[in-house]
Amino acid sequence: MPEPDPIREARRQWVAHGWEDSADGMALVTSLMRAQQLLAERIDAELRPLNLTFARYEVLRLLAFTKQGCMRMTRLGSLLQVHPTSVTSAVDRLVRQGFVERARREGDRRVVLAAITPAGRVVVEEATERLNAAVFSRPGLPAAEVTELTGLLGRLRAEAGDVVTT
Amino acid sequence: MPEPDPIREARRQWVAHGWEDSADGMALVTSLMRAQQLLAERIDAELRPLNLTFARYEVLRLLAFTKQGCMRMTRLGSLLQVHPTSVTSAVDRLVRQGFVERARREGDRRVVLAAITPAGRVVVEEATERLNAAVFSRPGLPAAEVTELTGLLGRLRAEAGDVVTT
Repeated sequence: MPEPDPIREARRQWVAHGWEDSADGMALVTSLMRAQQLLAERIDAELRPLNLTFARYEVLRLLAFTKQGCMRMTRLGSLLQVHPTSVTSAVDRLVRQGFVERARREGDRRVVLAAITPAGRVVVEEATERLNAAVFSRPGLPAAEVTELTGLLGRLRAEAGDVVTT
Repeated sequence: MPEPDPIREARRQWVAHGWEDSADGMALVTSLMRAQQLLAERIDAELRPLNLTFARYEVLRLLAFTKQGCMRMTRLGSLLQVHPTSVTSAVDRLVRQGFVERARREGDRRVVLAAITPAGRVVVEEATERLNAAVFSRPGLPAAEVTELTGLLGRLRAEAGDVVTT
């Protein structure tokens, strides 16, 4: 007999214990955790050879998209929707790797900027090519379902307070 | 002007750079990462006062669902869909917390079991009540969309090789 779906089995247990009101939500949350884990594994497999994590890739990608190749640390955190300490830690590591430099803004030296280096530009383009080829161009669902799923996740994000536009 | 949706903005950049084929997949993956992060924050807020992580909560929940309150370590890993070293690390911590004990199977002492303690049973019920009340009974979407989203995530899981039954 094949192993049953563990999430389906947990849902059945939730109902059997009288937690019907929470059973579908538990299944959703657990499914989302699992799907995220599966995608994170695929992403890590592409980024590990480049010695990057997805968090550090996202920092480099954002910096490479800017005109000047640099951005305030505070703005990086706001765009990445992570805590300032997480940005600091990712940028610290990128600085040690030679992919980012810290700079002060001319005219207001209190403003700390992160600036992408030439080596950072090379690695972020390589990482983007790898991720596009192996993950983003084939996330694992037909195109119509990709759009539908992104829309539903957007509603979940909006409900939690994110700015979401479609 | 309000800050635009960072994921929408990244999608626009993907198209502008000629990566149209990967733009929707990038938006999906990034949306999923963000939704997972938002839910993980809500879960952690409930479990932190109990000194539990979601990984350790899942171990306790599975053990408490069994008739004997115990399970092979290898089976825990297979049900939780995580690497054996992750199970070992979670169980080690639960043992130090007094919530789990390691045992050997009578008759075949080579088989290592994890067994939930009375203190573990108390904490897992408290944790389940908290998660049901604060997260699982109101995951952030209307019921019909919860089911739809779980179904789409199931298709993504199945495509990645998970056993998924609906």
